[in-house]
Amino acid sequence: MIEFQQIDELQQWVQQEAAAGRSRILVPTMGGLHQGHLSLMDIAKKRAGEEGEVVVSLFVNPTQFGPGEDLAAYPKTLDQDRQGCEESGVDVLFVPEAGVMYAKDASLKVTEVKLSSGLCGRTRPVHFDGVCTIVSKLFNLIQPQAAVFGEKDFQQLAIIRRLVRDLNYPIEIIGGPIVREDDGLAMSTRNLNLSSDHRQEAVVLRQALLEAGKMLGDGERNAEHIQAHVEKRLMESPSAIPNYVEVVHPDTLQVLDEVTDALLVAVAVFFGSTRLIDNLCWREEK
Amino acid sequence: MIEFQQIDELQQWVQQEAAAGRSRILVPTMGGLHQGHLSLMDIAKKRAGEEGEVVVSLFVNPTQFGPGEDLAAYPKTLDQDRQGCEESGVDVLFVPEAGVMYAKDASLKVTEVKLSSGLCGRTRPVHFDGVCTIVSKLFNLIQPQAAVFGEKDFQQLAIIRRLVRDLNYPIEIIGGPIVREDDGLAMSTRNLNLSSDHRQEAVVLRQALLEAGKMLGDGERNAEHIQAHVEKRLMESPSAIPNYVEVVHPDTLQVLDEVTDALLVAVAVFFGSTRLIDNLCWREEK
Repeated sequence: MIEFQQIDELQQWVQQEAAAGRSRILVPTMGGLHQGHLSLMDIAKKRAGEEGEVVVSLFVNPTQFGPGEDLAAYPKTLDQDRQGCEESGVDVLFVPEAGVMYAKDASLKVTEVKLSSGLCGRTRPVHFDGVCTIVSKLFNLIQPQAAVFGEKDFQQLAIIRRLVRDLNYPIEIIGGPIVREDDGLAMSTRNLNLSSDHRQEAVVLRQALLEAGKMLGDGERNAEHIQAHVEKRLMESPSAIPNYVEVVHPDTLQVLDEVTDALLVAVAVFFGSTRLIDNLCWREEK
Repeated sequence: MIEFQQIDELQQWVQQEAAAGRSRILVPTMGGLHQGHLSLMDIAKKRAGEEGEVVVSLFVNPTQFGPGEDLAAYPKTLDQDRQGCEESGVDVLFVPEAGVMYAKDASLKVTEVKLSSGLCGRTRPVHFDGVCTIVSKLFNLIQPQAAVFGEKDFQQLAIIRRLVRDLNYPIEIIGGPIVREDDGLAMSTRNLNLSSDHRQEAVVLRQALLEAGKMLGDGERNAEHIQAHVEKRLMESPSAIPNYVEVVHPDTLQVLDEVTDALLVAVAVFFGSTRLIDNLCWREEK
């Protein structure tokens, strides 16, 4: 595995790979790698095939954290991450410092103005500008043929698909399914920041979503009923402070009244200062 | 010369050229081609050399015109443009419709927040967002090794250089010198919209800037004096309505009090509803 910290080294390598006709599959991460990330690397490895190379970026992007958010507390596990990538057969690890990625007088940003208004965007107003900007930068630097993002960050995935469409990136976006702990909690770097009590309680996100799935299976089509039930279920957990519970269409992220062909139930919950997200995406069988 | 109107045709061609190891040099235009544009194509042709291909895009980008601006009145001379490109040895002409470039629910934009605040950005608040967005789209579609922009749109050129730096595009940006009519008027597509009286008067932009140059040559270093003289000189022309006269640093576009190593005098002037721009960039000889 090659490791780059500098942009010019990375660019030189990319140029050389492109000239040799080899493709690159990108997995952007903020480090703190867990099984969820490793599953994205497996997907990338398969997509890359014999000839292609898997590139993992590992960068805690400051511009996607708002003031008062957990930038400083975001877990850093570089040695472990490096080993995980190595074992997953990653070809290139890109680990830049913030000063390498952003000039002091940087003045460009990439903004999404529709899909990012609800869900996480409502309480994290600068978050998706930061995500769109860093992902554009990584796309321009690495020029991948495909990039893999996890479905836990469902809104992020939808916004990245829109970014690729609207800015005409010739890049295939692949979503990787949520990977869960044995008790159903969605894997997340932020799980490391939970107290043991909160860790136990946190399974309530999954339980509430599974109950929403059961309601749908039983024929419930009123979005408000589903939303209310999930919210109530979360509130039963003594430490859970729901940040949002939304029922939206998974393609447009528009709030639904009546469920027709598909829906996404998305939740964000605080346990202390740690904010967890999870979602359930349901589509009518045809 | 190949002509593409559709994105997928263009992308297929780009992919094929990239696989063959041939480079592309891009000249983005809004059509209404004049000698200024053709000089940019000459620069592109030289930069492309034997192996590379010159790509000209011809697209009157609606998102860079604000409400009440001259989008509808912008001259369209497609047959002539096509001929000019052919004669200049352009390899590929990309002429998309607006509906091809922008989805109806397009929601991504690329924004510059520092260099675009003064000069043209002050009176055209959405202009440079539109420019940055369309240029990013063209960069992603065409993946050029270099792109050529005219120095008449000095602020645009500075913003594009910043775009490339801050979003990490591996693209060389080349500025092409202003090309002028015999009487000194900077060539512009919008000159076609001037009445014959206004066309005669319009030479005042160049005259005022030349006088600023003379003041600098004579040792004047007070930016306000230069600014005031240019403004006064423009006002002497009966139909000229100055939109702005600014003296800024050519690299930062920050307003200067005292001239040190370099300055840009930039002017925008209305004649009727037609707005013309010109500039003089001066650097201390070392």
